[in-house]
Amino acid sequence: MALVLDAAAQALLFREARTANTFTDEPVADEQIEAIYDLVKYGPTSSNQSPLRITLVRSPEARERLVRRMAEPNRAKTAGAPLVAILSTDNEFHEELHKLVPHFPQVKDLLYAERPTREASAVLNGALQAAYFIIGIRAAGLAAGPMSGFDAAGVQKEFLDDDHTPLMVVNIGRPGPDAWFPRAPRLDVGEVITTV
Amino acid sequence: MALVLDAAAQALLFREARTANTFTDEPVADEQIEAIYDLVKYGPTSSNQSPLRITLVRSPEARERLVRRMAEPNRAKTAGAPLVAILSTDNEFHEELHKLVPHFPQVKDLLYAERPTREASAVLNGALQAAYFIIGIRAAGLAAGPMSGFDAAGVQKEFLDDDHTPLMVVNIGRPGPDAWFPRAPRLDVGEVITTV
Repeated sequence: MALVLDAAAQALLFREARTANTFTDEPVADEQIEAIYDLVKYGPTSSNQSPLRITLVRSPEARERLVRRMAEPNRAKTAGAPLVAILSTDNEFHEELHKLVPHFPQVKDLLYAERPTREASAVLNGALQAAYFIIGIRAAGLAAGPMSGFDAAGVQKEFLDDDHTPLMVVNIGRPGPDAWFPRAPRLDVGEVITTV
Repeated sequence: MALVLDAAAQALLFREARTANTFTDEPVADEQIEAIYDLVKYGPTSSNQSPLRITLVRSPEARERLVRRMAEPNRAKTAGAPLVAILSTDNEFHEELHKLVPHFPQVKDLLYAERPTREASAVLNGALQAAYFIIGIRAAGLAAGPMSGFDAAGVQKEFLDDDHTPLMVVNIGRPGPDAWFPRAPRLDVGEVITTV
């Protein structure tokens, strides 16, 4: 009994949650995404930099443009999900730090003056926030289908700008028929954890 | 009521959970870390690549070597935590894919033949798993203190090898006196989410 989190929450977020490959037609409302964000925004990032940005692809025309940029094995599920989100990093996140770190205004110049430093830090911290967002989708009783197989330069050109780097695309909705394959194995504790 | 996750779990994992800067002396057992891993190992990664590796720094001698590699503002908390973990990526994760993706043995050569591709993918996916691990620490009723301020090359040289890249260092334990500052602001929904 080393965990405090109750068994139902463990199941909802991790043990029974699965990456969905098919979805029902039930829509995902803006209010659901906002409730997810309002939960997971509290997850920690370096210096509270919070570089994740979320682009909800709602119009049929935008969806079609996105599907064309996905790797072939991801196209049908991206076309079929009720909602698809592009997760990206804001590489100019330092311009928001006056709001995020008002108690330490020096941090912008001290740590994040250089763009290459910001880009590397934004990938790490944007990925942390992407994981919190995936957990949040599950906390809303929905299934997430995160995908890294897409034309990143094309997605950036079509949907973002030079200051935003795509991290992943996430299908969101209720799982449909045959939504997943059998659970794949995970590494054992002894293969992952060492002690010094 | 857009969320299914109950309020107590929301508080434990996100709303009331905080990055701790001080800790009590209560030890953190290997069994707790193993229970955390056995929960969060189910979090999704690209092709189930699961590149995260965890080094538990338990001996006083190793702790001292690590503290010297931390940025000055992180030294006291790293010295004072009951347990400290170095989270890293295995850039040769493709050698484990026969266990992780037994249903698709081609994935190793199809996607991950080149080291630079593996390194970039391991940072993204290792960071996802680092976030799951932080959530798992909280699910065990413990506080996490993730830090990216350290000499990465030095930590790699002291504790890892050429195939493992450090992502972050995490203090783990029960929060001590004055464990945190007031909660810093987060960006509003409208600053993070756009719709196309």
